[in-house]
Parts: sequence; structure tokens; C-alpha cells
Amino acid sequence: METNSLAMSPVDGGTGRKPTTVCIFGTGDFGRSLGLRLLQAGYAVVFGSRRPHNSSLLPRGAQALSHAEAARTSEVIFLAVHRENYDFLGTLSEELVGKVLVDVSNNPRLNQYPESNAEYLGKLVPGASVVKAFNTVSAWALQSGGLDANRQVLICGDDSESKEVVVDIAHSLGLTALDKGSLRAAGEIEDFPLQLFPLWRLPLAIGAGLLAAVFTYVVVLDVIFTRVTTGKDNSFRIMISLANKVFPIISLTMLALCYLPGVMAAFLQLYNGTKYKRFPDWLDRWMLCRKQLGLLALAFAFLHVLYTLVIPFRYFVRYKVVTWTISEMKANQSKFDNTVAWYTDSYISLGILGFAFYVLLGITSLPSVSNAVNWREFRFVQSKLGHLTLLLCTVHTILYGWNRFLRASAYRWYLPPAYMLSLVVPCVVLVLKLVLITPCVDRVVMRIRQGWERKPPPDVAPSKSNPSQQPLIL
Amino acid sequence: METNSLAMSPVDGGTGRKPTTVCIFGTGDFGRSLGLRLLQAGYAVVFGSRRPHNSSLLPRGAQALSHAEAARTSEVIFLAVHRENYDFLGTLSEELVGKVLVDVSNNPRLNQYPESNAEYLGKLVPGASVVKAFNTVSAWALQSGGLDANRQVLICGDDSESKEVVVDIAHSLGLTALDKGSLRAAGEIEDFPLQLFPLWRLPLAIGAGLLAAVFTYVVVLDVIFTRVTTGKDNSFRIMISLANKVFPIISLTMLALCYLPGVMAAFLQLYNGTKYKRFPDWLDRWMLCRKQLGLLALAFAFLHVLYTLVIPFRYFVRYKVVTWTISEMKANQSKFDNTVAWYTDSYISLGILGFAFYVLLGITSLPSVSNAVNWREFRFVQSKLGHLTLLLCTVHTILYGWNRFLRASAYRWYLPPAYMLSLVVPCVVLVLKLVLITPCVDRVVMRIRQGWERKPPPDVAPSKSNPSQQPLIL
Amino acid sequence: METNSLAMSPVDGGTGRKPTTVCIFGTGDFGRSLGLRLLQAGYAVVFGSRRPHNSSLLPRGAQALSHAEAARTSEVIFLAVHRENYDFLGTLSEELVGKVLVDVSNNPRLNQYPESNAEYLGKLVPGASVVKAFNTVSAWALQSGGLDANRQVLICGDDSESKEVVVDIAHSLGLTALDKGSLRAAGEIEDFPLQLFPLWRLPLAIGAGLLAAVFTYVVVLDVIFTRVTTGKDNSFRIMISLANKVFPIISLTMLALCYLPGVMAAFLQLYNGTKYKRFPDWLDRWMLCRKQLGLLALAFAFLHVLYTLVIPFRYFVRYKVVTWTISEMKANQSKFDNTVAWYTDSYISLGILGFAFYVLLGITSLPSVSNAVNWREFRFVQSKLGHLTLLLCTVHTILYGWNRFLRASAYRWYLPPAYMLSLVVPCVVLVLKLVLITPCVDRVVMRIRQGWERKPPPDVAPSKSNPSQQPLIL
Repeated sequence: METNSLAMSPVDGGTGRKPTTVCIFGTGDFGRSLGLRLLQAGYAVVFGSRRPHNSSLLPRGAQALSHAEAARTSEVIFLAVHRENYDFLGTLSEELVGKVLVDVSNNPRLNQYPESNAEYLGKLVPGASVVKAFNTVSAWALQSGGLDANRQVLICGDDSESKEVVVDIAHSLGLTALDKGSLRAAGEIEDFPLQLFPLWRLPLAIGAGLLAAVFTYVVVLDVIFTRVTTGKDNSFRIMISLANKVFPIISLTMLALCYLPGVMAAFLQLYNGTKYKRFPDWLDRWMLCRKQLGLLALAFAFLHVLYTLVIPFRYFVRYKVVTWTISEMKANQSKFDNTVAWYTDSYISLGILGFAFYVLLGITSLPSVSNAVNWREFRFVQSKLGHLTLLLCTVHTILYGWNRFLRASAYRWYLPPAYMLSLVVPCVVLVLKLVLITPCVDRVVMRIRQGWERKPPPDVAPSKSNPSQQPLIL
Repeated sequence: METNSLAMSPVDGGTGRKPTTVCIFGTGDFGRSLGLRLLQAGYAVVFGSRRPHNSSLLPRGAQALSHAEAARTSEVIFLAVHRENYDFLGTLSEELVGKVLVDVSNNPRLNQYPESNAEYLGKLVPGASVVKAFNTVSAWALQSGGLDANRQVLICGDDSESKEVVVDIAHSLGLTALDKGSLRAAGEIEDFPLQLFPLWRLPLAIGAGLLAAVFTYVVVLDVIFTRVTTGKDNSFRIMISLANKVFPIISLTMLALCYLPGVMAAFLQLYNGTKYKRFPDWLDRWMLCRKQLGLLALAFAFLHVLYTLVIPFRYFVRYKVVTWTISEMKANQSKFDNTVAWYTDSYISLGILGFAFYVLLGITSLPSVSNAVNWREFRFVQSKLGHLTLLLCTVHTILYGWNRFLRASAYRWYLPPAYMLSLVVPCVVLVLKLVLITPCVDRVVMRIRQGWERKPPPDVAPSKSNPSQQPLIL
Repeated sequence: METNSLAMSPVDGGTGRKPTTVCIFGTGDFGRSLGLRLLQAGYAVVFGSRRPHNSSLLPRGAQALSHAEAARTSEVIFLAVHRENYDFLGTLSEELVGKVLVDVSNNPRLNQYPESNAEYLGKLVPGASVVKAFNTVSAWALQSGGLDANRQVLICGDDSESKEVVVDIAHSLGLTALDKGSLRAAGEIEDFPLQLFPLWRLPLAIGAGLLAAVFTYVVVLDVIFTRVTTGKDNSFRIMISLANKVFPIISLTMLALCYLPGVMAAFLQLYNGTKYKRFPDWLDRWMLCRKQLGLLALAFAFLHVLYTLVIPFRYFVRYKVVTWTISEMKANQSKFDNTVAWYTDSYISLGILGFAFYVLLGITSLPSVSNAVNWREFRFVQSKLGHLTLLLCTVHTILYGWNRFLRASAYRWYLPPAYMLSLVVPCVVLVLKLVLITPCVDRVVMRIRQGWERKPPPDVAPSKSNPSQQPLIL
């Protein structure tokens, strides 16, 4: 919507309510977007600017004054300037005494300065009450109204009343506020928008590690083996043939790694006999990034599908088909083998079905879809359909191998073919899961999850301040 | 964000506001997540626990006392324990008199007990005011803040003031509350998170039915016919060839079933001459699950595309190509047939375009996308582009058949080829839609939708309490 | 959830709060949905209807009276009828004096009437205070609770207190309100839900223009050239072969057009030496629709992928392969060319990787995903991964051409092959971006973005009302 054609005036609610004035220092992108939103929410907005007479970019309805004058008009001042420009505030110490000074700044890099911007500001202007807020909301989100996870404003500060004032402003703009404590938490809040996909670090590391390891394995067993044993140069196979061995192996392994912590946690609870004992830290961390593991596995599966579908129009494959055709003709064409037709069509079909369910899992991981289903539906898809996907993809890989593992020629340098490596983790997960869903084991797990404990806790020693006793059975 | 490194303290707003204390019985997943959220929103939180001295898992800043002591500190008590453990509350009847007791429980299965948990609780503790709430919000949603459709708390209870208190707490946590009436509605609220995709039941049933029917049809006409007439064993074709006949038939039929109720409703309104007459229940139910019908149809179309793209590297297909190549060579290669090139390329091209629009329809059905467009844009995509997709896919199927329906050999056992079955419903829908968009018919439909009625309603009989008369023309 | 089985009663909060009564004129879809929502939020609802005794469709718990009686019960009246039916309000002028009359209407077409519905209503009922609101919220959104971007109610009106009342109602329903000024803004608010993808106009126009231009180019250079020079009829190639030349050219060009304004803006800032000078309007407009340009480019890339994957089972291609096989056999099969294998596998592989990143870009453009990441993560994906995608697809196209540009036969009628046209814009963008990321240039751009200016602004002339002077360095 074109903002310059709409009149902007604060909703003043008649005789009763006086509009609150908010002052903003700084006329950059963020300052202007914040000012516009505040005007639309009914506040009067005053900008403190270096050049109050050159205010062509400011939203209509807002005033522009010098910094000192602007500071006097309001109780709350948003400081929408970069940290490098904080110095001038030193000259305004008097006007800023007793004001709520909101630090909305971000730094381009983590740990760029020894102390957080908000604490630095607090030292610069000791008379003001500094509150760190709004640094997680971007100017673009303020303009476009696209506030969902960006709807949350993290707040911290030493004075509770000042924080209250800022929380009220946040609520008027349709944002929610989360209190993080005193100003010492400012460093953490300033780091928050600089995080770059923190939950993806471990899955990406695992993926990169697997990529390097499996790629080396297949190159050795394919290109180097062929060069050493026959002298032929097979290296062109790296681009597609070997890539199409590596990607499915990584995908299946990571999908299994996505479901392995769940079964391990269940067995741990069975072993402990209770659900109240903490999991080891590494298991906790693993369980936190299961969704990212699964999505990365889906990405590799998607690449595998595309690399498979391009097989027929590769020059190499066409050359092989022509060679085969010519040899078939000279040999007067071998008989059609029904078994080969059955198992090849089967593993292709299972692969397609597995991928289709995989895509369904991915779609339900989208934030809007996973929030539109209740937790029973979510568990049904992610758990039941998830294990079904793992099963289909594992059987797909087993059928792809068929009886190759029985032939000695498949074992180059006494190492198994690469595809067999990918079957290890999935089979472990599927077998463990099979154990977990047998009725007797399942019953115990359900009871533990409802709060039952194999070894009841020791009695609570009665303290002097608590004359009543808890019955044993609680 | 690592929660254990952040200090948690209630925002107490200075001299004016006293923090409200909320008591939580139960230290499981939900109780701890709820306590943490309440602390972050500014409440003081007291846990009532069986083992108040073993409180290592509780969020920092929360207190842990015995149940009786905790109950005394607060007006509101959240009961975060399973129904099986409600008994101990009997011993606390005195402390619970006059308190608001919030039942947040869920059962693992529908209709597990004769009466709802909340009503059972009410009988157990008659002095307390029981409110059913928060059972639709999961512990994970509270922790991660991922609250969208899970943002809604369903509330019911006999006492309005108690409900008010719980509604306020919900609002402070950034949730919205929906009042469902008295405590008799608790059973329905408890059933809500146990539903498993209720709107998908009918479409999945239709899909399964079509799957069984069409699959049987193609197996009979392909594998069994071949076995009976020629003795050859064609059964390997089930995995891919026959699957790739079944899936497109189901997809096209379900896509047509997605648009059929719309045209039926329009004709019904034309027949009735008004939009104020209720549709039959079966039509209402059908119209409610149109989106799920369409998405299921898209899933089958996606499978059809994958099964088609794998054709060239199937053993069976390569064998056929080699056979064809050899026969072509011996026959000195037949001439290139331009017509065949034209219509095969055309039906493939139309299929691709139809699938692309199909995917676009699916993307706009995602919750976040359908909420980002206004209703005119939504109708444009779902209705105009939707019918265009149906048209493209129908022409794709017709061209695929080409002149096969003219040859007698296509009719095995006097039955039509399977693909012709899939054309019935789509052609009906497209013809009816064509009638509806002719200007004269369209004009009448628009007027009816704006409120015009062919037969005006009877006069309102003037009642004693209403001396004024409504003019006839209203 | 089945609404007819739930009791609906307003939450009256005990002795303190009296339920506000809201009156709704009109019992159509919107009126009934709004009434149901208001009941669930705790309001008492009275419908004003032409036929108060025939109220079978109304939500339970709502009253139905004549228009005049209903108007007397409440301060606020929602007018949920079409503009064509506004006339009857003339008879109710007395009862409507001093009421807040909320106009929620929409028209089927833009500019259907000379003045907005709200202003027309204002003339019809001069004693009432007309507020335009709720026309952007659909009945279906009210029913299903699916309110996200539809959560925003645009409000305008001449009287601030009346607007306050409506804003409060909106908040109770969980909606946010945006004040657009006086009633003169009603026309703009009424146009808002009639917009049909306004940000897509320019990208779709560019796409259509490119489609026409490139399609003509390839048809001339392929079909017409062949017909003129050899007399053969190649026209069947239009459906797939030529389509598969056109789509990738458009896709790559539009992807480059998506990133071109960014580099142009950076160079403009470098030239100006400041970030405070406004961009030209055409550049602003271009930058606003970058996301739509990118998504349209992705759609064409998706079509290109599908058209490529169907190559092997086209009749035309199978005929060519058979021809090639037969000639290979007669020529005793040419030697396997490793270089051809390398570069063809490479360009296919790069194309797949480029498309995979392309899809990732598309997924992160979904509203729910782009709102779940912070701005640093969003910039990383859209900018770094975006330019990587552009690079991969450009190298894919260059490798596809290989050494064709060196052969004279590739230049038909002295014009370059079509694929070379698609390389122009991408190479320009990539070269300019390369310049921008060299450390010396990048440093200057970063400083400009932080507020540094090459030519400091002129001194602020001291005014009589402002005795203090701004220091020069600010």
C-alpha cells in the first residue's frame, strides 16, 4: 500500500486520553519504520535529528526537532543509531536524566566489543534508565507487518518500571515481550539476531563429515580401483555416477540418525525404570536437532532422486545402451528375465513411495503446517509415517543390492560395496524399534511415560516448617 | 537459547503492582514448561510437589513446597498431573476451598472414562471451582514458543469469574482464549486434541476405495487377461506399469470430485432460486473436505509423475527398446511419423503444465500462504487456476488415448481401457462449469449470491410487541 | 468442531462487568460468522433482521429483533449488508443518531461506484458516526480462526472515540487494528481486498514479454530456418524441444533481474557517497518486487526441469536414438569420448545443484519459514545462497554450450544461438557483484550503510527557537 497517500493522525480518543509521545533519535531505516508504526498505533512521534530541517524522508505526522528539544517532549526515547555514533549523547546528559532510553542496536559481528552496547550506553548516560529492546525486530518486519516469530521483543534492563513502559509500547504495536532480566543479559540479547542457524550446526557438520568420508570411499573403490586394476580412466563418473552413490547413502544414514535418539531414549528410560532421570547432555543435544537432521536427509534424498532421473540422457549411459544393444543383436538377444524385472521394478517403486512419504514429512515440518495440527496428529506423521519412510527406504536399498553381496567380485580390496554401509544404522534403528513396539515392552514404556517408577523415591524427611507428611503412595 | 544461563525474575512493575502467584501441582514436562513461561511473563510460580526437596529439574526462580503449602500461596492452581493421580487431592479439600482449580489433563484415548476428567475432578473437590483449560497447548509449544493454531486455549467451567482469571493468565502468555460454556463441555474439549485428522477421513476413504477398485480393474484387464489369453506371466507389471495406470486415474477423478460439489451447489441455488435454503448434509460435508480431496489428488499426481519419469531406466523398458531397435534395423527403419510426434509431445507437454499448476494450487493451500493472500486472490487461484488445471489434465488424458478408443483391440472383454474411466467425472464437471460461466446463467448466479430471491418470503406477521411493519421490499 | 452441540453464553465476569451488546444488521454469511465470534468472545449479540421470526440459521445465544428494536439495544451496529441494500437505513435515521455504525462492506469490482460505500452511508445516515472496518476479514476466516495476515483490520473514520470502540472489539476477537485516518480513506480500504496480486503485475509482465520475445526467436531460428533451408517440417518441436529452450532462458534471465537492482543500488550509493539520497522511482519499484521475480524464475526453472526429464521417452528422441544406434553399428561404434562424458555430466550435475539451491530459496520465501528465521539468517540464504544459485545456473548454461559458440554453423542467419542470450544479464550481475565483494569496495559500501557520507551536509542554520547549535561532526 502506498504510504504517502494516506493521512496519518494519532487516534486521540477524545477528551479522556492524552496521546503518549515517543521520541526517536535517528532517522535511518529502523527509526523511520518504528516511527511510522507508532503513529499508526496512535502515538505522537517526535524525531531527534542532526538536521531537523531536512526531514523529507520522515513519515507524515511526525515532528522533527533537535536532539535536545526532542528529548524534552517525551518520557521514552528510542536510540535508533549505530553504537559508533553514541558519543553525542554525552552532551545531552542533562536532558536525558530520568528518561527511559531504549537501546535497539545490533552489531554486525558477534563479540565486536568487550561490553554490550546497552551497558556502554548505560555508562555514557548514567542518569537515564537504559532498557535493551526491539533489536530482534527488523525495520522490514515493522514496515511490512510480517511479524510472526519476529513478533517477539526480548527486553532486559535494571529498572522494572522502565521495562513496563517499553512492554506497553511493544503490546500496542502487536508484539509480545519476553523479559530476560537485568542489563547484564544485554550481551545475550544482542547476540541473538547474529546467530546463524544454531540448530543446524551439528546436522551440517554430520552431513559434511559423511560427505567427505563416503565420497572418499566410493572414489577409492571405483575410480582408483579401476585405474589400478585395469588402467582405464573412470574419473568422469565422479560428477554423476559417484555423486548418486554418495547422496543416497548420506540420506539414509541421516534419516536413521534422526530416529536413533528416540529409540535410545526409550531404552534408557527402560533401563533407569523412570522418566525423571536426566538424559546425558549429548543425547539431549542430539534430540534437539532431530528435525534439522531429517530435513538435511530429505535434501540429500531430493538430490538422489534428481541424479537418478537424469540417468537416461547421459552420454555415458547412452553409449552403454548402444553397446548393449549391439551385443544383444549379435548374441541374438537374451531371454527376458522375469525375476530381474520384478526386483528392479520393486526397488524403484519402493524408492518412489519412500520418497513420497519423505516429502510429506518435510511438508509437515514447515512451521505453518506443524502448527496447524494438534500434537497427536503431529506425532502420528512424524513418528509412525517417519518410521514407515525409514523402512521403505531401507528395503529399497536392500532390493537394489539384491544378491550382489553374495558375489565375491562385489568386494573390491575386501571392502563391501558402498551401499551396504548405508544399511547399518537404519537396520539397527528398525530392529530396536521393532523390539519397542512388542506389546510387553510397549506397555512398560507407556507406564513409565505416565509417571510410574520402578524404584520409588526415598521418603521426604519432615522439616520443622512442614508439619504435614506426604503419604507414601504419592 | 540456553535457558539455564538466563536469570529469571518477575517483572514487578515497581511500587504499584504485586506479582500474581500461580501454583502448579505436578513437576512433569507440562508443569515445568508452564512454570517457566509464567515466570517469563512476570508471575511468581510455586510448585506443589511430592518431593519439594528434590527440585533440580524446576525452572530457576520458582519455589517448591508441599502440595498443602503451595495451595495456600495462590488463588489459582494448575493441576498438571494425570487423571490416575487425582486421588491425593481428596486429602487437600480444605486448602482447595474457594480456589480456582485448572484441569489441563488429556487422556491417551478417546472415551477412556465414562465422565470427563474435569467433571471427575469437580466431584473429588467440591469446594473448588474447576475450570478446564490449556489441554490443547502442548509442553513443547510452551517451551519453543511455536504457538500459532496451538495458540488457542479452549476454556469451560461453571463459574464465570474463575474463567476470567484463567483467561487473563492465557492472555499474559500470548495465547487467545475461547469460551465453550459450562463444565459439561469438558468432554468435548478433552476430545479435541485426540482427533486424528478428522477432515481427512472422508477423502482418505474415497482414495482407498478408488485405489482398490481401479487397481482390481487394471490387474484384471492387464495381467489376468494376458495370462488367460496368451499364457504369459505379466505380473511384474504390477509394481510400476499398473501403478502408473492407477495413480493418474485416481488423481484426475479426485481432482474432479474436488470441484464437483461447487458446481452442484451452484445448480442447487439456481434450482431453489435463493441462497438461503440449506444444502443437504451430504453436500455440506463434501464441501467441507474439498481442500483435503484436492491435496490427496495432488499426492497421487506427484506419484504419477515420478512413476512416469522412471520409465526409461526400467529393465523391462530397456528390453523393449532393444527389441524395437533390432526389429527396426531388420525392417530398415520405419519413416518418422510427424503426427505421432505432435500428439505424444503435446500430451506430455500438457501433462507437465497441468502438474505445474497443480503444484501451485498445493502451495497456495499451505496455511501461511493462504493467509497471506486476500479472499479475491485466493478465489482466483483456487477457482480459476483450479478449473484450468482440471482442464489441462483432462485434455492430457484425452490426447494420451488419441484414437485408441476407436480400435476394437483396446476393449478387452468388452470393457473400456482404464484411462477412459478417469474421464467421466472430469468431463461432467467441465461441462457443467461451462454452462455456469455462460453470461446469462452467470448473471443469475451472481444475483442470487448477492441476496436476490426468486420467490420473496411471506410477510412478517405483526406481533403485539412490534408495532412497526417491515416494508415489503426489504 | 460441531458448533451446534456447544452451549454459548457470554462470560460476564461476575458482578463487576456488564456484557457489551453488539448489534448486527444482516444475517448473511458474514453477519452470522461475526455474531458467533462475538458471542464466543463474551459479547451479547442482537441481530436486526427483516424476518426476526425466521432465525433458524442464527448462532444460538443471539437474539433476533427488528432493525429498529435491535438498534436501540446497542451503541455499536455492524452493517453486514450489501451496499445495494443500504436504502432501508434511511427509515431508521432516528434510532441511529449517535450510534457507531460500522461499514464492513466490499464491492465485487474496483471503482464500481463514484464514492466509497462508507461515505455514501455517511450521507444516508448523517446522525450516526460511520467507521469503516472489518472489510478485510472474511467470513470464512472468522469461522475457522485462520487469522494471520487476515488478522489485521483496517480502520478509518471521522470520529476518534467511535474508532476506539471498534478497535476494542477487534482486539477482543484477537485481531489487530490499523488506523488509516479519516473517512476519506475509506475508498482505499475498500479497494484493498479487491487487489489481485499487485506486486506480481510487473514480474508477470516481464515474464510474459520475455516469453513472447524468446519464443519468437527460437521458433524463427529453429522451425522457420529449417523449413526455409531444408524444407523439413520441424513444427512438432514447439511442444517440448522449443519450450525447453524458452523456459530456461526466461528463468535464468529473471533470476539475474532479481539480483540486478541490488548491485545497481550499491553502485548508486557508491556514486552518491551517501545512503540518504532517494533511489529513482523505477529502481524502488523494481526492488519491491524482487521476491516475486525470483519466485516466477523458480517456476520457469521447475518447468525446465520437468521438460528435460521427459526427454528420454519422447517418440522423437527414441527415434533419434534408434537411428544413432543403427548408424553406430554400421560404423562399428565410435570410441568413447571422455571429454564429452566429463562436460555433459558436469553441466547436468551443476544444473541439478543449482536447481536444488533454487528450491531452497523458494522454500525460505514461504511466509512461515521467512518469519521463523532472523534477518541475518534470511540475508544469508537470500543473498549468499542466491548469488551462488545464479553462479551455478550460469556455469551450467556455459558448459551446456561448451564450444558451440566457436562453430560457425551455430549462428543461423548471423544470429547467436538462443542460449547465449540468456547469459548476458547473469554475467553482468555476477561481474558487478564480484567487484562489490572485493575488500576495498566492500569496505566503503559497509561504511556508507552505517551512515558515513562522503560530502557532509551543510550546517544547520540556527533558528530563533533553537539557541543551541549542532556540532559539525554529527
